[in-house]
Amino acid sequence: MAIEFLKLSIISSAITALTFYLIGLIIYCEDIEKLATNNSLIIPKSTNGESVIPYNKGETDFPIQNIPFGIFSDQGTQRKRPCTRIGGYVIDLEILEQNNYFLGLCTQSNMFAGATTLNPFLQSGPNCWHLIRITLIKLFSPQAELTNLLRLNVIHNFESVSMSLPVYTRSFTDFYSSRYHAVNVGTLFRGPQNALNPNWEEMPIAYNGRASSLVVSGTGVRRPNGQVKGTDGQVQYKASEKLDFEVEIAAVIGKASEIGMPVKIKEAMEHVFGFVMLNDWSARDIQQWEYVPLGPFNSKNFATTISPWIVTIEALQPFMVEMESQQPVPFASYLKQSFSHTFDINLKVYLKPHQSHQPALLSTVNYRDLHWSLAQQLAHLTVSGANLEIGDLIGSGTISGAEQVGSMLEMSKNGGIAVKVGEDVERKWIEDGDQVVIKGYSEKQGLRIGFGECSGQIIQSLLI
Amino acid sequence: MAIEFLKLSIISSAITALTFYLIGLIIYCEDIEKLATNNSLIIPKSTNGESVIPYNKGETDFPIQNIPFGIFSDQGTQRKRPCTRIGGYVIDLEILEQNNYFLGLCTQSNMFAGATTLNPFLQSGPNCWHLIRITLIKLFSPQAELTNLLRLNVIHNFESVSMSLPVYTRSFTDFYSSRYHAVNVGTLFRGPQNALNPNWEEMPIAYNGRASSLVVSGTGVRRPNGQVKGTDGQVQYKASEKLDFEVEIAAVIGKASEIGMPVKIKEAMEHVFGFVMLNDWSARDIQQWEYVPLGPFNSKNFATTISPWIVTIEALQPFMVEMESQQPVPFASYLKQSFSHTFDINLKVYLKPHQSHQPALLSTVNYRDLHWSLAQQLAHLTVSGANLEIGDLIGSGTISGAEQVGSMLEMSKNGGIAVKVGEDVERKWIEDGDQVVIKGYSEKQGLRIGFGECSGQIIQSLLI
Repeated sequence: MAIEFLKLSIISSAITALTFYLIGLIIYCEDIEKLATNNSLIIPKSTNGESVIPYNKGETDFPIQNIPFGIFSDQGTQRKRPCTRIGGYVIDLEILEQNNYFLGLCTQSNMFAGATTLNPFLQSGPNCWHLIRITLIKLFSPQAELTNLLRLNVIHNFESVSMSLPVYTRSFTDFYSSRYHAVNVGTLFRGPQNALNPNWEEMPIAYNGRASSLVVSGTGVRRPNGQVKGTDGQVQYKASEKLDFEVEIAAVIGKASEIGMPVKIKEAMEHVFGFVMLNDWSARDIQQWEYVPLGPFNSKNFATTISPWIVTIEALQPFMVEMESQQPVPFASYLKQSFSHTFDINLKVYLKPHQSHQPALLSTVNYRDLHWSLAQQLAHLTVSGANLEIGDLIGSGTISGAEQVGSMLEMSKNGGIAVKVGEDVERKWIEDGDQVVIKGYSEKQGLRIGFGECSGQIIQSLLI
Repeated sequence: MAIEFLKLSIISSAITALTFYLIGLIIYCEDIEKLATNNSLIIPKSTNGESVIPYNKGETDFPIQNIPFGIFSDQGTQRKRPCTRIGGYVIDLEILEQNNYFLGLCTQSNMFAGATTLNPFLQSGPNCWHLIRITLIKLFSPQAELTNLLRLNVIHNFESVSMSLPVYTRSFTDFYSSRYHAVNVGTLFRGPQNALNPNWEEMPIAYNGRASSLVVSGTGVRRPNGQVKGTDGQVQYKASEKLDFEVEIAAVIGKASEIGMPVKIKEAMEHVFGFVMLNDWSARDIQQWEYVPLGPFNSKNFATTISPWIVTIEALQPFMVEMESQQPVPFASYLKQSFSHTFDINLKVYLKPHQSHQPALLSTVNYRDLHWSLAQQLAHLTVSGANLEIGDLIGSGTISGAEQVGSMLEMSKNGGIAVKVGEDVERKWIEDGDQVVIKGYSEKQGLRIGFGECSGQIIQSLLI
């Protein structure tokens, strides 16, 4: 009996050991190709059926259909270089280029290596942009082998890298193209009868912003000091007390135009590579006192935050929509469009008050609700002869909708009423330590293409 | 008798021949060191006692005391590279650097070689700027030997080269700092009682210009098309009919500042490398219709012309003058100066009408007549946190004086009266084919430091 039991026990143990060995072997075989030699990154098995990189379809901003472009640096080298992103993983385009993954696709052979911005890639032109995107989609298809890519250290966990400005921008133009926003602001300052300036319906009004103070999402933003005229008529020099955000989308120019040569409205969209989200921080009290007659200056110049990922026009094609017919039709021929399209991009702005751990949703707006189209903006910008350069940003202006709005100025009626921020907090303007986060995405029939986030936290002003 | 005459004749001939031989030898010895091996440039003997390079003291803009910096290309190589200028000669700084003439002067060893702008040189800092200038002054002292420099092909005749933009500029800020100009313009549009906007005396008003359409002197400027509102209230799309110039000086930033860190007024001038002349072309009819509420845009964006030579702060030291005391004193502490200095720079604007071969002097103004100082402009620009970058341009705004003015808008009272241009021509605005030339110089006790010229000719607008 004891011997029988011992036999049974040995056999049972052997079977158990064998079972565990076989299971281990299976796991090992599945994971071995996903074990990087350099950074021991382990990528779990993907079950989304779209890509070898795992993510939850319809939840991530970065499915295989997105392929946005950005600039990252890893903790080790701290060297800026181009990348794309799938799910929670960042993919090093420099290493792929150096290892001939893009060989023969573009006329330029060197777009990523040594580049600290995406400008050289943009320079390579639309055909190249398309081929690189397609190649990346194939490279990370469900059937793909990751072993070699992991050995080359191509893939990084997004959490382990930091992102920089995706492009070098010389000209940042900011439009004022949301009728809802223009009417809301005009009503606050001039009453409903004179809300829109006479020129507003005839041309997409804009001003030149300051490109040198563009910062990437996550950069702290210092509250500006400046001159402010009080309600008593006294002018004071102090920290702005009406600090605000503006929810915007900015187009990234991928194709330059010549000085003195207007871009025709039909050809305007050919100059666009993609989009980022943009927060045009504004000090409303400084703006109110300084802006006549040359426009906003110090009230906007101190910082403008953009999101790190450029989502391409190509990725956004499924979300192209016809714009509502423009009323009144602009009289000027250079602004007329037979078909006027835009993109259905949702933008949600959250505020995480300094008192709280939870960001609260303040507003949801949509890029499609603008009055002026991007093509009209570009045609207007260049009609007098100004040129476009690669990396230029074309801001939409604050995006407001029929019900929800894209600035505190509008929400609090210029500080007249308190805005609920979550359960227990109220705000008229942004306070020190508050963090403003814009999230953007397009969504349709289970496909979600997102922008990630565009965030900034307010640092207290310098002592005067 | 005949034999005697023959003897005399032979001796006389011999003496004549010998005399010519000796004269020829002297000329040869003087000129041989000035005969370049490559471009056979002959530089006449200098008699000015200041430099081995000849020029007329008090007449040239570019005596040895100037040493301005620019970017040139010669007809042969057509390659842009840094240079300076003495009299009518351009001096190649790249070759001098490559031949160790600047060895050990600056921490960077490579500021000129391969540089197509002066930004790398500016990056090297004030001590380096000074040492390079001093070295160049010594190198071209009256006692200097030119043989080696000519053999190296360092010197070019100015007439044989072409000039490019001296710096790469990301931010072009244009101020509005002439009280005379602001009052003149305000009076035209709002009457003498409301000429100055309330904010004008409290801060140096400015806007962000468009750096991408900066062009160098000599570049043709196309008349812009745009929207214009007629006196009948009708808006039209057409070529601007009120094309104007603005006479300005622009400071060139040589030292950057950090985002979020205002530049103190006491330290502001440390950020300035030098000055250029600037013509801020303006389409007044387009400006009038577009500028509310975000400021000038298409009316200015089409082109801004600058002169090719940066005249350094160091060269202008003899012309530093105390500004007239500022009334009213600005209340804001960041704008207060115990000593407020500027530079005595004469600016003459000429118009060469398309009908004429002769440029006619329209006006003479002076940079010292501004209300706001450059230090105040820089303190204001950065007070909210905007940063300065190397190569940035800080335009003064139109410079007008008590009697003479810096724009056609003021001369013709917004097109109300005709302005005499020389003997036979009149203008209310600039016509196609007209050439506007600004010349600038400082002068004192026989020393003249000049800027050369800033010119542009108007090309007809594109057909609509």
